[in-house]
Amino acid sequence: MLNTAVRAARRAATIINRASFDLEQIQVEQKAPNDYVTEVDKAAEEAIIDVLISAYPTHAVLAEESGGSNNLNDESENVWIIDPLDGTTNFIHQFPAYCISIALQQKGVITQAVIYDPVHNDLFTATKGGGAFLNNKRIRVSKTDRLSKALLGTGFANRNKDEKALKEFLRMFEVMTLNSQGLRRPGSAALDLAYVACGRYDGYFEKNLKIWDIAAGSLIVSEAGGIVADFDGEAAYLKSGNIVAGSPRIFGQMLPLLQSAI
Amino acid sequence: MLNTAVRAARRAATIINRASFDLEQIQVEQKAPNDYVTEVDKAAEEAIIDVLISAYPTHAVLAEESGGSNNLNDESENVWIIDPLDGTTNFIHQFPAYCISIALQQKGVITQAVIYDPVHNDLFTATKGGGAFLNNKRIRVSKTDRLSKALLGTGFANRNKDEKALKEFLRMFEVMTLNSQGLRRPGSAALDLAYVACGRYDGYFEKNLKIWDIAAGSLIVSEAGGIVADFDGEAAYLKSGNIVAGSPRIFGQMLPLLQSAI
Repeated sequence: MLNTAVRAARRAATIINRASFDLEQIQVEQKAPNDYVTEVDKAAEEAIIDVLISAYPTHAVLAEESGGSNNLNDESENVWIIDPLDGTTNFIHQFPAYCISIALQQKGVITQAVIYDPVHNDLFTATKGGGAFLNNKRIRVSKTDRLSKALLGTGFANRNKDEKALKEFLRMFEVMTLNSQGLRRPGSAALDLAYVACGRYDGYFEKNLKIWDIAAGSLIVSEAGGIVADFDGEAAYLKSGNIVAGSPRIFGQMLPLLQSAI
Repeated sequence: MLNTAVRAARRAATIINRASFDLEQIQVEQKAPNDYVTEVDKAAEEAIIDVLISAYPTHAVLAEESGGSNNLNDESENVWIIDPLDGTTNFIHQFPAYCISIALQQKGVITQAVIYDPVHNDLFTATKGGGAFLNNKRIRVSKTDRLSKALLGTGFANRNKDEKALKEFLRMFEVMTLNSQGLRRPGSAALDLAYVACGRYDGYFEKNLKIWDIAAGSLIVSEAGGIVADFDGEAAYLKSGNIVAGSPRIFGQMLPLLQSAI
């Protein structure tokens, strides 16, 4: 199943990489790139669904562009959760932080995960109970012991210009900046989680995400030995879209500070 | 002269890329990477200075690790301004946003600039009056017309944990987030400026930088048709280390909003 998901991600990457070249031309011609990128997003998603559903015709799909479709209902045993292009704003501007995220949820549990970064050719994968991998090499979360030495990632969903949510984000930004080595905000939640898994970040937090932003990344982090939870330290992050992730040591130091800021 | 600077940057990149492999091993062995990276920083700087001063024995050097050296005084006509590894925290954590920055200042004016990103093999160059280039291809700042559609970059120097400066940064972060499409914070000022020059960002702002963070990037932005100034809209940014950069249209929309927040 993981191999099929990897094949689907690579198919989407071909579409996305080709579109990168076109985007340069569109910018030279001063056309609006947003509509074009929406088309790329949809084409990539269709390619992923085509690969997955050809292999597993009875499976359901929950995807960013098409919403729920293909047999999805409350009793669906196998649901593929897909973000064909996480970091769309970055992609439009050709800022090199975006990826494809594919997860399989079986009876409510994420069991397979693929995050593919086509800019750096980084393929992150995990199978429940089988560990996490970057380009087929086993990965583990970082061994950094103190938050003061930690590099953290975060993000803020800026679509809605929600001033109250922004003020809360800035309170978290402040306390985590003062207590860590540094805080980064590159703008792709799925990639941020993959970076926790391979130790490039020691921890990550963000609120108001969608399930397709975090389904694959959450399994990759936990299979790499990390902790994933919501801001109460509970497991309901896929439902709320509020997520804190990190190595066990750093997670434990982040959570009370974040709770003090919200 | 530009060719010599490019050769110096590539020599440093060889040292830095080799050290990336070693860093993985250091992390596996749970050693402290900071001391090791300081050594890498120094070795890269020495390699750059060696190339430059072999070619131009009378030139002075102003560099991050060694401070002022080699003939530097107030009347120096030719000063090479060097950051051998901008984004050191990122490099330590193998977060892929760091670069080498080399500029030549002649009678107080930046005339040659090289920024080399060894992760993405992106070579940004500029010569005063001769345009700006990415991998030898001419680059221009973005044509985005409205701030609401703009992707911006920013940064915060976190070494000193300066709470007053952080609060000011967060006020700027708030107003720019609400008025732009998005705000990114990847953590390498030189690379941020290079991204403005090639249109991946529409604008960028940061305070409390050092001259070696921004000397090369400021020329690359202006040779790409962008505006670079301090927060008063004046030219004293190399002295103050406070910098706003962008395409002419976006710069004009950013500046009053930033001024309202500081």
